[in-house]
Amino acid sequence: MEKMKIAILGYGNLGRGVEFAVGQNDDMELTAVFTRRAPETVKPQGHIPVYHVDELLKKKDEIDVLVLCGGSATDLPEQTAEYAKYFNVVDSFDTHAKIPEHFARVDRAAAEGGKVAMISVGWDPGMFSLNRLYANAILREGSDYTFWGKGVSQGHSDAIRRIAGVKNAKQYTVPVESALEAVRNCENPQLTTRQKHTRECFVVAEEGADKARIENEIKTMPNYFADYDTTVHFITEEELQRDHGGIPHGGFVLRTGKTGKDGEHNHVMEYSLKLDSNPEFTACVLTAYARAAYRMNREGMQGCKTVFDVAPVYLSPMTAEEMRSKLL
Amino acid sequence: MEKMKIAILGYGNLGRGVEFAVGQNDDMELTAVFTRRAPETVKPQGHIPVYHVDELLKKKDEIDVLVLCGGSATDLPEQTAEYAKYFNVVDSFDTHAKIPEHFARVDRAAAEGGKVAMISVGWDPGMFSLNRLYANAILREGSDYTFWGKGVSQGHSDAIRRIAGVKNAKQYTVPVESALEAVRNCENPQLTTRQKHTRECFVVAEEGADKARIENEIKTMPNYFADYDTTVHFITEEELQRDHGGIPHGGFVLRTGKTGKDGEHNHVMEYSLKLDSNPEFTACVLTAYARAAYRMNREGMQGCKTVFDVAPVYLSPMTAEEMRSKLL
Repeated sequence: MEKMKIAILGYGNLGRGVEFAVGQNDDMELTAVFTRRAPETVKPQGHIPVYHVDELLKKKDEIDVLVLCGGSATDLPEQTAEYAKYFNVVDSFDTHAKIPEHFARVDRAAAEGGKVAMISVGWDPGMFSLNRLYANAILREGSDYTFWGKGVSQGHSDAIRRIAGVKNAKQYTVPVESALEAVRNCENPQLTTRQKHTRECFVVAEEGADKARIENEIKTMPNYFADYDTTVHFITEEELQRDHGGIPHGGFVLRTGKTGKDGEHNHVMEYSLKLDSNPEFTACVLTAYARAAYRMNREGMQGCKTVFDVAPVYLSPMTAEEMRSKLL
Repeated sequence: MEKMKIAILGYGNLGRGVEFAVGQNDDMELTAVFTRRAPETVKPQGHIPVYHVDELLKKKDEIDVLVLCGGSATDLPEQTAEYAKYFNVVDSFDTHAKIPEHFARVDRAAAEGGKVAMISVGWDPGMFSLNRLYANAILREGSDYTFWGKGVSQGHSDAIRRIAGVKNAKQYTVPVESALEAVRNCENPQLTTRQKHTRECFVVAEEGADKARIENEIKTMPNYFADYDTTVHFITEEELQRDHGGIPHGGFVLRTGKTGKDGEHNHVMEYSLKLDSNPEFTACVLTAYARAAYRMNREGMQGCKTVFDVAPVYLSPMTAEEMRSKLL
């Protein structure tokens, strides 16, 4: 069997995760890592050649799918549309509000190149989106709920670190258990921001810093913390490294709905993820959709696709017969 | 907007559920119910014409999708292949071991007729299968678990009713909470049949019947009960009707897996359903896949399909743009 040739652009936590994920799939191999840094400073876990991004187009024939591992703020809005002209690509673009715009730009590029470009692949957007779609298509009269956590929010951790006197910080988003239970009990609660999630902050203060001021600045920060019940714990750098070194995340997607002559029957559909490593799990999803991008393009499909456009059969290395006998 | 014309063959609990489900979807209408009984004895909830099944082919042009609401034991093995020659069809064939054979026969018929035939649509097979596939494609190194219940097993209830001295009975399949917790904690337990589910039976005995003998016959019944911890409660017919009149079901699909350099990160993917009415929920799934069958056939697709072959975008009445902005 000839293996799918996967390349990575960007070797941070996500790129490293894709390297691990490709290693778990017999039908693909990682042929190259591309970076904007000096290639000699990037050290993959395996014996994978590292090239500067300027070499990317020269390696065109050695790449079946390019997995874009940059960030949604500045990298992907440029990279995905640029490289979709030349490669089947997959990205994890997760700025929900800007997806329609990103889709349109990438779709033009992928159509021009005759390639498949999968955008917004991961768990939210991604697996959570799929569950919202399936549940909405099935339970037509009902309510949707998405809860995130318990998990590390990078954006909120960064916001705390920008406060004067803060040396380091980690912020966890935590779903409110009683709100989850009310949803599961089909109480159809109308939940405010404060009622859905709490925020828990672990902060390392600089020596002599005014902790009361820091705590107050965190708790009153607009958009990030003011609308939530926020807890602040001051700890040492050693404690932060020891107890809060990981990047866990996860969450819950629920839809409750009614059926029957008079809506007398309640139904609860629930999907949840509990992830020790947010980037490594996201990388696994990207890798499955890289397989789909390759197969769909080989069948003649092209243009921008999201998880909604991908028949599940394209994601698994099994044959369709195996899937039907083992998984159906 | 022209509405999709849906017809039902077989008007039991499932057919009735499809009637309700179609009523929750603005883009479709129920145009006819077909039955093998005397048509005048079948009373849909709405003003829907009822015809004998012998009239089905004559109504060919008034039907976009025929939803087959018969049973998997004897109805669907004949009906799906027969009608896939003339109609886009959807069935809920759920004899897992015979799916490959059913698929092959239906595929020939649907290809012959140029139609789309969706088989094994519901929640297991169906939504549970999808979750097994997605989770397996993403977490490549891991373990799968499916738990059913708490819910009514019709087959087990029937088996109890066949025992001499039993007037009526209802059997619940119940997942073992501690086993579920062990899976969620990534303990990768090897679970025996007994460790996964218990069986709870509510039995109405005939007057003067030997309850000890009935209880013993239930608990030692091979295949059905002998491998399980089974509880038997004797109750009155009134209690059975009052407290156990529904057809609830549900269950859990879990996959746990490892990622990272040395598999140091655990991940848990969990999907669960809690359904007040098994047939009405199944009917909602059938109805969503009826929409997909119609749309896929209009795009030129044909042959037998399962939930694995259907891109999620075909299931929702929303436009692709709406889905991307509201659900992704």
